[in-house]
This record gives sequence, C-alpha cells and structure tokens, in this order.
Amino acid sequence: MNTVAESLSPPVDFDDLARAQERILPHVLRTPVLTSRTIDALTGARVFFKCENFQRMGAFKFRGACSAMTRLSSAERARGVIAYSSGNHAQAVALAGRMLGAPAVIVMPADAPRVKLDAARGYGAEVITYDRHGESREAIAERIGAERGLTVIPPFDDPLVVAGQGSAAMELFEEAGSLDVLLVPCGGGGLLSGCAIAAHALAPGCRTIGVEPAAGDDATRSFKSRSLQTVHNPDTIADGARTASLGAITFPLVLRHVADMLTVNDAELLRSMFFLWERMKLVVEPTGALGASALLEKKLDARGLRVGVVLSGGNVDLAWAAKMFSQG
Amino acid sequence: MNTVAESLSPPVDFDDLARAQERILPHVLRTPVLTSRTIDALTGARVFFKCENFQRMGAFKFRGACSAMTRLSSAERARGVIAYSSGNHAQAVALAGRMLGAPAVIVMPADAPRVKLDAARGYGAEVITYDRHGESREAIAERIGAERGLTVIPPFDDPLVVAGQGSAAMELFEEAGSLDVLLVPCGGGGLLSGCAIAAHALAPGCRTIGVEPAAGDDATRSFKSRSLQTVHNPDTIADGARTASLGAITFPLVLRHVADMLTVNDAELLRSMFFLWERMKLVVEPTGALGASALLEKKLDARGLRVGVVLSGGNVDLAWAAKMFSQG
Repeated sequence: MNTVAESLSPPVDFDDLARAQERILPHVLRTPVLTSRTIDALTGARVFFKCENFQRMGAFKFRGACSAMTRLSSAERARGVIAYSSGNHAQAVALAGRMLGAPAVIVMPADAPRVKLDAARGYGAEVITYDRHGESREAIAERIGAERGLTVIPPFDDPLVVAGQGSAAMELFEEAGSLDVLLVPCGGGGLLSGCAIAAHALAPGCRTIGVEPAAGDDATRSFKSRSLQTVHNPDTIADGARTASLGAITFPLVLRHVADMLTVNDAELLRSMFFLWERMKLVVEPTGALGASALLEKKLDARGLRVGVVLSGGNVDLAWAAKMFSQG
Repeated sequence: MNTVAESLSPPVDFDDLARAQERILPHVLRTPVLTSRTIDALTGARVFFKCENFQRMGAFKFRGACSAMTRLSSAERARGVIAYSSGNHAQAVALAGRMLGAPAVIVMPADAPRVKLDAARGYGAEVITYDRHGESREAIAERIGAERGLTVIPPFDDPLVVAGQGSAAMELFEEAGSLDVLLVPCGGGGLLSGCAIAAHALAPGCRTIGVEPAAGDDATRSFKSRSLQTVHNPDTIADGARTASLGAITFPLVLRHVADMLTVNDAELLRSMFFLWERMKLVVEPTGALGASALLEKKLDARGLRVGVVLSGGNVDLAWAAKMFSQG
C-alpha cells in the first residue's frame, strides 16, 4: 500500500540533480573522497568518505544554496535573498550571495553565538536578529522578504535545494563506483533525499540509509510509521539535526528512495567524531559524523560491503570540542 | 666559496627520487592537495597544501621507510629491520615492515608514552625499551641489529630515506604545477632535503624554505653559518623537530638546494595548528604545521606568489590538544 504522497509524481528527480550539478559546478568544490585502511579493517567493509567538511564554508549546505540561487533571474539576484538559520545554512546563503552577486539577509535569533553572527557578517550578509519568544523566524523572513522583494532560500524543503545537495552523492559515485550502502546524516532530509535520488539513479542496488541523533529521531519514526512525526528542540550535540521534522517535499522523497533509518546517541556520536579526528585527521562536526557513527558503532552489518559515508560538515567550535574531549 | 661538502657530488639526486617514487608507488597513498580561499585571501598568495597528515600511519615518514625497505633483498627483508624512534618513524617502519613482510624491531625509551609503544606493537612490531640514561638508542639499535642480522632503517640521514621523502614534493608539483615557494617542516632535514631536490629539478625557479621551531633552530643556524650546529632536547611542542642536528647527508643537501630557513615560536605554531583545524578541517600535528605557520604568521612576504606547503603529519594526542586549546 502506498501513501498518497508516494503515488504523486516526485517533486525532484535525477534530471533535476543533473541540472543542479551543472549550474553549481563553477562555484562548489569537488570535495575529496578519502579511505582508511584502519576503518576498513575495523568494519570489514570498504569505506569511502565523501568529505563535505572541506566544502566551501565547511558544509554541504553550500551546494543547495548555490543550486537555488543560480536559478534566480538577474533581477531577482540583484534584489537579493533572505534565509533563516543559525547554522550552516546561514553561512551557505551568505557566501553564495557574495559569490553570485546577490545581497543576502540572514534572520538569526538574537542570542545566537556571536561567532555565528560574525561568520554570516564576515561573508557580507546583513544579519537581522529576532527574539526567540516572539514572532517565528519563518514569519519574519517571509515578512521582510515580501517588504524588500527578497527571495526566501529555504534550508531544506525546496526542490532546488534538495537537487543541489544530491550532487555530493553524484560526485561520490563518480569517484568510488558502485556502492552497496550509502550512509547520510539526516536533519530536515534535504541532503538525505538528494543523495538517495542520486543513489537510486546511479547505483540501483545501493541502499541509502539516513542517520539521526537518537534524541531527535523524528525522521526515523516518520519513516517507520509512514506518517510525519516531529520533535521539539531535541537535546543532542548534533545541532544540524535538531530540525523539528522532515518537510512536505523531503518526507515523500525519503519514503520513496531511502531504504532504512538508524540512530546513534550522543555518546556514540562523540566517540565517532573524535575517532575521525584522531585516525582520519578530519575535523568533522557532530552532525557531520552521524553516518560514520552508525558504521563505527556497528548499527549495521557492513562486512564485505562497499559503503559510502557522507561526512556532511566540519564547522565545530574548537573550544567546545576541547571541553567535550576533556569530559569524555 | 663552497664548503667541501658542497663540492662533492651529492649523495642523493633527482634520479634517486624518481626511482624511489616508482618503488613505493604500490604502497604509499597519493595524498590530496587542498586549497583554501580563506587562506589565499589572508595571505594574498595562491596556496597549495600537500596533506601528508593523510599519509599511511599519519605522516610522510612512511615514504622514507618504504623507500629504504623496498630496496632490501628478499633475504634482508626476511631477517628484518630495526629502527630507533619514539615518534612517527617508529610507526612508519612498523607499518612498512608489516606491509613488506619484514619483521620490525623498534627501540624506544622505556618512558615513552604508552600510546606510542602500543601503536608500534599494533602494527606488529617488536618493541624493545631502553633506559634514557644508559646506552644510547643508536648504539642499542646497532648492537641488536648486528646480533640478529637486522638492517637499521635510519630516521632521516640516509640517501634512500631522503629520496623517499622527496616523493611528497614530486606529487605536489605534479598536481599544483609550478610554485614560487615551497615551505617544508625541518627536523633532521630528511623531508626538507628530499623536497628541495624535487623542487630544484621540477620547478627550478622555486625557492624551498625550511621551517623550524624557534627553540630548536639548529638547522637555521647551520644554514646561515654553513657549519653544523646542534641543539640539546629543545623545549618545543614540535616534537618531530627536536632532532639534535641535521645529518652528514642532509646538511650538504640543505646547503645545496634550500633557499632559506625560517623559525616560528610555539605560540605562533599552536595558533597556526588550530587555525588549520578550524578553518581547513585538517588535524595537523605541531611539527606538521611548521610550514603553514611561517606563512600564516607572515614570516615571508607571499603576496602574489604560488606557495606550496607540506603539512607533514597529523599524529597528535587529542587529550593534549584539548589541554593546549583550553590554555591558549
């Protein structure tokens, strides 16, 4: 039995990914795919890590922002864009705006870490702060966008954004060849659904598996129950996966293309993150280590398989990491 | 006026490097060359980072060990090898021994960090400990080597080791094209002289510059005075560059091929190391960050230049790094 969502024609398909990849090619980095004999020996698998921590501004989010913003008309670009985010999406839109000549406005909570406000400003964006307890950030972005004629760039629930994120997996398959399993961090599902579409088209036997923090397992519950579940501000170090739920666009794509969902708890995630630092010499942020953690903590039997892992980002505060390491 | 050393025909030339590169090709990783727009913007240069922190066992040392050990006869390999080191050279010889089927003995101080003893044993080496205040480690290695018929693999002062280390720069030039400056960490000068030979042959206009910790500036003083200077157990976080002096083989090569030497102090080095972690998402050890630190701390005017930087290794104790970060 299919849900209504599944029976509709999908809002994003592989052609959309191919077009997005072509549009963003001059702007995004083709990030390296790294392997580790140590990790292969530990897992019994052949593992290929797609290092989006090396992407511009330090995370895959730049792909999606670029994909959406390269589709704007020159008049739309000149008027500018607006995004609400206190995380990597803010930096992505700010940097893409600077590179594409589109003034960018970022709506952030007034109590966001100073380093995040400064980072967005550093990329030349105008930052507008709001009170977390007042008007919602979506409403503020919509209102200011309408007033100033700015285009809203959504963080994940947008066909162009999803298509852009999928280019990470396209590059991975181009480099690693066919894979049996692809492990992808999941917050709002933009990266996961984009990568799953790529896998479906480029490696039909490949099982795409999304990985969430256990405390914010809404997508896992949504996937298993086939109805959209939510969480409220979950307590996890994976700040990029604290999203309330999958979106109207990403949820049906996840149902259609994703083979399974797994979770890891924060202790497991932290251990895996520092393992990547120590053994692979890769600075990966907690959310970025979700896929690797499912593998390293043996949430799936990967023996004998060719496994792709998307390391989705590397933006981590070293002072925080030093504290976590000392406590761990 | 040339010194006697310079007028002799050099013990290592580019043909030796080319032969070493061919021998070690099946065993070493071709490490990626990464760039950073942030660092280009900060320095006004176009910078290419050769990431030997991703090399097998986490440092360039594997190249030299492999170069020496692939030249052994099958009888010599079967008898085995011996090395004295408490650092990356120990891991390099242990791993190369395992990969090439040569039993490896590593001589280490009895009070070496447990993690280092375990790492060498983890690669299958036999570890022999000694008392720092008794017989010298060189003497112990020579004696045991003679008793057991083992070949000593020196850490840097050996033509085959130097030739192997040079392959890092050969790969860098192959990927980045011509460079104006090449910045290379300097301990005993094996990596530095190997890379300088490569630069001399592949990019004749390129100035190879060695970078040392200020507290262990023996090579800088040797270079400037043209006579071999030493240090005794210098107090620096760059543990791979605490070597007492350049060697009989590396010193004349440095005089012949290196354009200049620079130093950075520990505070500068630590700042640069964490900058590489935070901005480039690369875990680099203090010694590995020496070349980058000379650039980032503006010890040279790199504006408008194409600059190569060898990030020589990434083996750093995260607990130590967390402590240093919290103090810094």
